[in-house]
Amino acid sequence: MISIEEQVRRQAKAAQAAARKMALLSSEQKNAALEAMAQALERNSPQILAANAQDLKCARAKGLSSALLDRLTLSEQRVLDMVEGLRAVAGLPDPVGEVVRAWRVPSGLEVGRVRVPLGVVGIIYEARPNVTVDAAALCLKAGNAVILKGGSEAIDSNKAIARALIQGAEGTDVPPEAVQLIESTDRRAVATMMEQRGLIDVLIPRGGAGLIRTVMENSTIPVIETGVGNCHVYVDVHGDLEMARRIAINAKCQRPGVCNAMETLLVHREVAEELLPALAAQLMERGVQLRGCPRTLALVPGAQPAQEEDWHEEYLDLVLAVRVVDSLDEALDHIARYGSKHSEAIVTGDYHAARRFLREVDAAAVYVNASTRFTDGGQFGLGAEMGISTQKLHARGPMGLEELTTTKFIVYGEGQVR
Amino acid sequence: MISIEEQVRRQAKAAQAAARKMALLSSEQKNAALEAMAQALERNSPQILAANAQDLKCARAKGLSSALLDRLTLSEQRVLDMVEGLRAVAGLPDPVGEVVRAWRVPSGLEVGRVRVPLGVVGIIYEARPNVTVDAAALCLKAGNAVILKGGSEAIDSNKAIARALIQGAEGTDVPPEAVQLIESTDRRAVATMMEQRGLIDVLIPRGGAGLIRTVMENSTIPVIETGVGNCHVYVDVHGDLEMARRIAINAKCQRPGVCNAMETLLVHREVAEELLPALAAQLMERGVQLRGCPRTLALVPGAQPAQEEDWHEEYLDLVLAVRVVDSLDEALDHIARYGSKHSEAIVTGDYHAARRFLREVDAAAVYVNASTRFTDGGQFGLGAEMGISTQKLHARGPMGLEELTTTKFIVYGEGQVR
Repeated sequence: MISIEEQVRRQAKAAQAAARKMALLSSEQKNAALEAMAQALERNSPQILAANAQDLKCARAKGLSSALLDRLTLSEQRVLDMVEGLRAVAGLPDPVGEVVRAWRVPSGLEVGRVRVPLGVVGIIYEARPNVTVDAAALCLKAGNAVILKGGSEAIDSNKAIARALIQGAEGTDVPPEAVQLIESTDRRAVATMMEQRGLIDVLIPRGGAGLIRTVMENSTIPVIETGVGNCHVYVDVHGDLEMARRIAINAKCQRPGVCNAMETLLVHREVAEELLPALAAQLMERGVQLRGCPRTLALVPGAQPAQEEDWHEEYLDLVLAVRVVDSLDEALDHIARYGSKHSEAIVTGDYHAARRFLREVDAAAVYVNASTRFTDGGQFGLGAEMGISTQKLHARGPMGLEELTTTKFIVYGEGQVR
Repeated sequence: MISIEEQVRRQAKAAQAAARKMALLSSEQKNAALEAMAQALERNSPQILAANAQDLKCARAKGLSSALLDRLTLSEQRVLDMVEGLRAVAGLPDPVGEVVRAWRVPSGLEVGRVRVPLGVVGIIYEARPNVTVDAAALCLKAGNAVILKGGSEAIDSNKAIARALIQGAEGTDVPPEAVQLIESTDRRAVATMMEQRGLIDVLIPRGGAGLIRTVMENSTIPVIETGVGNCHVYVDVHGDLEMARRIAINAKCQRPGVCNAMETLLVHREVAEELLPALAAQLMERGVQLRGCPRTLALVPGAQPAQEEDWHEEYLDLVLAVRVVDSLDEALDHIARYGSKHSEAIVTGDYHAARRFLREVDAAAVYVNASTRFTDGGQFGLGAEMGISTQKLHARGPMGLEELTTTKFIVYGEGQVR
């Protein structure tokens, strides 16, 4: 029997060979394979649901939280959503082959930058089995091979899904090794994956802060960091308070467990008295627990005192930190100090305040008069999303197909030498 | 006395604060500071040369190689070149603030991507003191703060140069902490630098393969990998042999110690007999040592047999591996197997071979009928260069000012919620 390390290395090597073939496929060839995969997924729905039931049984036996059980659960409808997701990706424009720019240099060389696939993309994720389909579809469409490593809780579901995808690829021009699942749930499998520099071109961890930190710190392969969002909404002195109320409630309550939800509300002192008591009541009605600075506490008796940790926290829950600030500058300083550079919003009617906020806040997405919840590939019109990058290299903010590619310089000469 | 670790952390923190200010400077403010720095550098030329003499004395006492001594040596002319380099960077267009793209989404939000600085850039380099000036100038022009960590051999030169730059910045709008040199030559300084995630946004190592590997493997900050080039020239059956000869000699001999020099020559078997004996003689005349495959050895008696390692090697010297191949496919396979994805060239008159080579070779720069030596920011018309990236994330190939920036999404709303 071969070791887990050797198994992962072999998979990475096979993926690299498949990536060379993937890079040369036409859009039609890739789309035909995605359609065949969609059909295979639909056909295999009973097997996938049976495997998922098995995963759920183990998860319940282990006493996993209901939030995790929810993320893990598939239904006929969720499988159909995955099938539709595959078809939607097939319908997106192919980023590969685009000449980003081309020019002539004094030596007479014609230089161009052409968009090409990244090569082999590794995805390390947690309990959501739908990531197996979404990530595979996006990687393939962008001409990459993909190695998937899902959480152990979803292993049976992921195996059944991967089997269906590979079955779908049979008879198409997508090589079977272009989509590979790492089936071992041993920790050494992930560790080995993070060491395959030269075989895997990029790793994208998708999941909680702990997973992302582990990958960032241990990978020798370039990583795209995704996810952590300590997002703020700042209500300026010139803000429309009715709009502020609507945005704050949406940013906190519409889906509190995601990275673009608001975690801290900053309010200019001149509007705090008018805004906070009523807004706090509406938030508390929706089950939101408030943690306030001293000035907030004076206006909102139901709030608890905020500790220093609260300004750093990504609650991902119906909890909100609230701080009254003296000025736009104080709001900007607070965001620079505690923000995670994900999504930040100002509510204001003042032209100069809007301009300063847009210019001075260093974050993947900066909003004037809109909810932070819009930071999303679909909402931004990118067509699909491979997570939200919170790093500055390569991709920043929602990642679409283009972020799963790189460029190369191509140079046409007539015998030039230096 | 504070520890080295604490000192580096304080420098990184000060750089982060300076970066916030740098991001808001206008092109005029940055250019004025670069001009003032150029003047200060020129004024401090005697001090810089005296410090350099001290470094050279120590280096000679340690018995360092003549190649290293050459890289370390400054002269009045080399200082003037650095001064001119600063002015050239001031003259380049400012990448910051460019709206890369803007569009409206169905919710009515107006979404745009704006080019912004990276933040704090860390440069880890070896003996060349001119990197201190070049890297600082490019980083500042792109609106970043920069932390420089040069090799211990150049410490006195680097200190004198950094002092001159900081003196130049005085009285301009560039904060003094925007350019910082790590003066400690203790290894813990670099180790600490590589751990400043959240304070330093990106690390760029510039130097030999060992340095780059160390940074790639140990940094928890995103790294841009630069440099290693195992570059090939492939002479196709339809190639113009006179052109092939000129390109091969240029790619190997014009500057053998750099990353875009050719390390392996691949020759189609149908032209090997006509090309190789004469070309080998011309290369050997120029002091090139040849290491050939068996078919090469039969045509070039002066060559030594190539070992498997030779195909992997980046000689950075007057040594060349030579292999006769049966077809374009065999050449493509060889490059895919042994190449470092830096610069690859084909010499051919065949349209289809040129197209296949451009399309199928996975490298930062792919050439038809030109020397690999052109892979360079200046030669590609990028105006300046911060090294050549051999990774696929963020930057690939020669990095100009644009590669020292990132983008952020800015979103204009009218109260939109989800």
